[in-house]
Amino acid sequence: MANTLLIHCPDAPGLVYKITGVLFKHGLNILRNGEFVERHDNHFFMRTEFAGTFEAEALQQELRAVLPPTAVLRLSDNRPKRIVLLATREYHCLGELLVRHAFGELNAEILAVVSNHEVLGTLTQQFGIPFHHLPHTDRTREAHEAEVLAVLAGYQPDFVVLAKYMRILSSDFVAAYPNRLINIHHSFLPAFVGASPYAQAYERGVKIIGATAHFVNEQLDQGPIIAQSVIPIDHTRSAQDMAQAGRDVEKIVLARSLQLVFNEHVFVHRNKTIIFD
Amino acid sequence: MANTLLIHCPDAPGLVYKITGVLFKHGLNILRNGEFVERHDNHFFMRTEFAGTFEAEALQQELRAVLPPTAVLRLSDNRPKRIVLLATREYHCLGELLVRHAFGELNAEILAVVSNHEVLGTLTQQFGIPFHHLPHTDRTREAHEAEVLAVLAGYQPDFVVLAKYMRILSSDFVAAYPNRLINIHHSFLPAFVGASPYAQAYERGVKIIGATAHFVNEQLDQGPIIAQSVIPIDHTRSAQDMAQAGRDVEKIVLARSLQLVFNEHVFVHRNKTIIFD
Amino acid sequence: MANTLLIHCPDAPGLVYKITGVLFKHGLNILRNGEFVERHDNHFFMRTEFAGTFEAEALQQELRAVLPPTAVLRLSDNRPKRIVLLATREYHCLGELLVRHAFGELNAEILAVVSNHEVLGTLTQQFGIPFHHLPHTDRTREAHEAEVLAVLAGYQPDFVVLAKYMRILSSDFVAAYPNRLINIHHSFLPAFVGASPYAQAYERGVKIIGATAHFVNEQLDQGPIIAQSVIPIDHTRSAQDMAQAGRDVEKIVLARSLQLVFNEHVFVHRNKTIIFD
Amino acid sequence: MANTLLIHCPDAPGLVYKITGVLFKHGLNILRNGEFVERHDNHFFMRTEFAGTFEAEALQQELRAVLPPTAVLRLSDNRPKRIVLLATREYHCLGELLVRHAFGELNAEILAVVSNHEVLGTLTQQFGIPFHHLPHTDRTREAHEAEVLAVLAGYQPDFVVLAKYMRILSSDFVAAYPNRLINIHHSFLPAFVGASPYAQAYERGVKIIGATAHFVNEQLDQGPIIAQSVIPIDHTRSAQDMAQAGRDVEKIVLARSLQLVFNEHVFVHRNKTIIFD
Repeated sequence: MANTLLIHCPDAPGLVYKITGVLFKHGLNILRNGEFVERHDNHFFMRTEFAGTFEAEALQQELRAVLPPTAVLRLSDNRPKRIVLLATREYHCLGELLVRHAFGELNAEILAVVSNHEVLGTLTQQFGIPFHHLPHTDRTREAHEAEVLAVLAGYQPDFVVLAKYMRILSSDFVAAYPNRLINIHHSFLPAFVGASPYAQAYERGVKIIGATAHFVNEQLDQGPIIAQSVIPIDHTRSAQDMAQAGRDVEKIVLARSLQLVFNEHVFVHRNKTIIFD
Repeated sequence: MANTLLIHCPDAPGLVYKITGVLFKHGLNILRNGEFVERHDNHFFMRTEFAGTFEAEALQQELRAVLPPTAVLRLSDNRPKRIVLLATREYHCLGELLVRHAFGELNAEILAVVSNHEVLGTLTQQFGIPFHHLPHTDRTREAHEAEVLAVLAGYQPDFVVLAKYMRILSSDFVAAYPNRLINIHHSFLPAFVGASPYAQAYERGVKIIGATAHFVNEQLDQGPIIAQSVIPIDHTRSAQDMAQAGRDVEKIVLARSLQLVFNEHVFVHRNKTIIFD
Repeated sequence: MANTLLIHCPDAPGLVYKITGVLFKHGLNILRNGEFVERHDNHFFMRTEFAGTFEAEALQQELRAVLPPTAVLRLSDNRPKRIVLLATREYHCLGELLVRHAFGELNAEILAVVSNHEVLGTLTQQFGIPFHHLPHTDRTREAHEAEVLAVLAGYQPDFVVLAKYMRILSSDFVAAYPNRLINIHHSFLPAFVGASPYAQAYERGVKIIGATAHFVNEQLDQGPIIAQSVIPIDHTRSAQDMAQAGRDVEKIVLARSLQLVFNEHVFVHRNKTIIFD
Repeated sequence: MANTLLIHCPDAPGLVYKITGVLFKHGLNILRNGEFVERHDNHFFMRTEFAGTFEAEALQQELRAVLPPTAVLRLSDNRPKRIVLLATREYHCLGELLVRHAFGELNAEILAVVSNHEVLGTLTQQFGIPFHHLPHTDRTREAHEAEVLAVLAGYQPDFVVLAKYMRILSSDFVAAYPNRLINIHHSFLPAFVGASPYAQAYERGVKIIGATAHFVNEQLDQGPIIAQSVIPIDHTRSAQDMAQAGRDVEKIVLARSLQLVFNEHVFVHRNKTIIFD
């Protein structure tokens, strides 16, 4: 199994040379390497897949010695991420992830599914995954979020995936999982932020619709975009037709974004993603 | 050469039967037929290509007799439209249209090119098309628009095409050519309305960029959309890179939208297009 | 629930008028109508969705009276099709269809899954669908096919869907379900016919890969194409990477083609499909 | 202006470290770097854009000292390539390249256009480019090719671009410009090799058509693929309609492939391209 090293820091002369030098001296074999310098703010990003045996602590120390002091360094052994899925009523994204998971294709362990409705319980449990029905009715948003957070805390997930979870999260909720909450929005953001994007798309008469997977931050539908995809539509499609056609795009884009994140292809820098694919 | 008949009106029972009945009785041969009923407001649209000889006045009268009184009827012999292009400094859309025009592929006659800059004069005149340089400097927007409108009036165009004309038109200008002004906007509308869409796209970190051809109405970038297309981009692209990559999409989308409009494939209904392709 | 009428026959004057006349006289309301004339052999196709009550026998008789004698007429009440799925080892197409089916989105009843391997049994039975494991080992192809055909015959399916069934069917098998066998081929046909299309694609160094859903005829991968889709790839993808990336395209294209066929959008004419979408 | 360094050789430990070490010691600043190892045959590819002043001979010598002896090394200052275009009758690819060239967007100097027909002479000369009409009639293929080669030789082009040149080149012709002949084929290769790909596509009833830009080798339409793109089509399109719709794809794919080649993004290895974009 390959290891992945991700480094980002202000750009400086010779970074590639110095970093690969440390790996070379450790006898580690680079399988794949990508670098990128964001010219806008002169920031350096490097992702390396390598093979070989090493002592993680020592390697990191030597790398830090050749890097600027503000460098952010992540060393991953690529074992499956621990995740919890949040869903509401729509089955398509949840079904997509459950099937992939059942056949070992997600590089993640689905620990549980949490939903504010009951309807997806059968599908979830059929795959042997715990299902938590936490209705949002008859309680405040704060109280409901506290219940959800309590269940999440019990699982200690690396990531929480909003698989068509149709509730807006508070800043406090978001702050509990910084850059660890991934959402699928059913439009080509930044077009059609907020509720009912397909109704908005119908109203505007667009000829293409899409979906956007993004990290969640405190501003609605404004977090760093991981993946987007679109399909053409025409005047014959009602908002409901668009919603149906859009499902295929949504689930594939969400699955694709998880593959990128769980396999350590993604940096978040300011409000953007840098993705070495 | 085929003729095209476009009809739209409130839906009613038997419209297809009645309309095709009139054509049948005149011995006209339907080559292609499309109907669509917008369920939202129960509005009927029909486009028919047919061959055969007929007396236009009589045919229209008989058609009106079987249609609801508010029906809008357009009968076209598909001869080339008369058009004027407005441009600023960018060559790609203008070049695209001039080359197509030179080889008879636009179903339009380019009568002239009007620009607020001089830079595209050589390209235009090289193709034997009159070029009007009307600078916008040292005069009010009203005065400049009046000059442009005066030149346009001299040509009596069916359509005015904004081939990257980078000035915002006043309501009065727009009102002079209702549903006859076609613009190419360099974003996937309604994302990134207004100035510098590529800079906006860069800032937002989108993974796809696009272009939108639309009829111009009095609200900036809000008119009925005719065609849209997109291309994938990634974090390595600066706003300038996006602008360069976007040019190919812009010019193809503009050319495609003109093909649809000039060949009578497009209805405008409320703020949308109904396109029989 | 709407009804669908599909008619194809040699073109003749007034067909639309005559057909819609019959519907109009029966007080049936056309919701959507499409016609197409294949100019190559002057063949007429028409698909009509309509609402209203009618006596099927009488309606068909009246329609036949206005149609050429060789006309083919299909009147469908759009109730769910009865289908059996054939699969081998790969889970993605089967999973896609089972999940859609579980949520009523296939317009079909999956009666059973038949496989020459055991591995997909758990997934199938989890959804409450009968699973028939019919190994192909230790018997002739003829004997194996006879077993499969016997199981199929017990279910009387309208369509048999090859959801990554990795065995080549004999002409006799194909002849048992004319235009009722639907396959997903993991390439952009006609490129890479036959075995290992991803290995072929890798070897050729293509920049795009795809998938093709088609009706099966007696010639391998030569049947009428229903739907195709592609994704871009680059030199970094091994044949195995392509296979993985291709799965998403395969399953969506297969599901899309079934949606078209099961909802009566598809004509087969010679070796092509005419699809009113 | 940045310089570009392209190196490929059998993979070996520490190559990135050693190569970037040489650049670092010369005080050269890496702007962008890409590496790739083809696992199939363990071959290493690296492309580096860098800035700074250097003595080319010395730099190359030092690089060779750290590389395997069979390494292939290309150091480019990215000045415009010298090119000649070959065309026949179709205007769209030629027009595309002439317009881009006129506005300095091709990173190439178009030295001349050679055609076996006269029809594109006006367009070419309008842009101030020499046009050579070399008819293929009344002479053998060998004699015609000799005339074309003679004209080409007079210009000493870096690349020869077949912008819809509809004649099959002999092995001798191809051998004169190894990996320097770029063709646009009007299909999604390897589907529809040879003549009339749109007629073949129509006949087969495909739902997507495309175009392929590739280096020419001695086998017809079998050379290394540089870029491909596709558009959806449906049953309503005749072979002629496809040809028309395909033009937009052809010219954009050709222009894109030239941009990649002329800006030194492309390696050719065996029968494939490795492209760092």
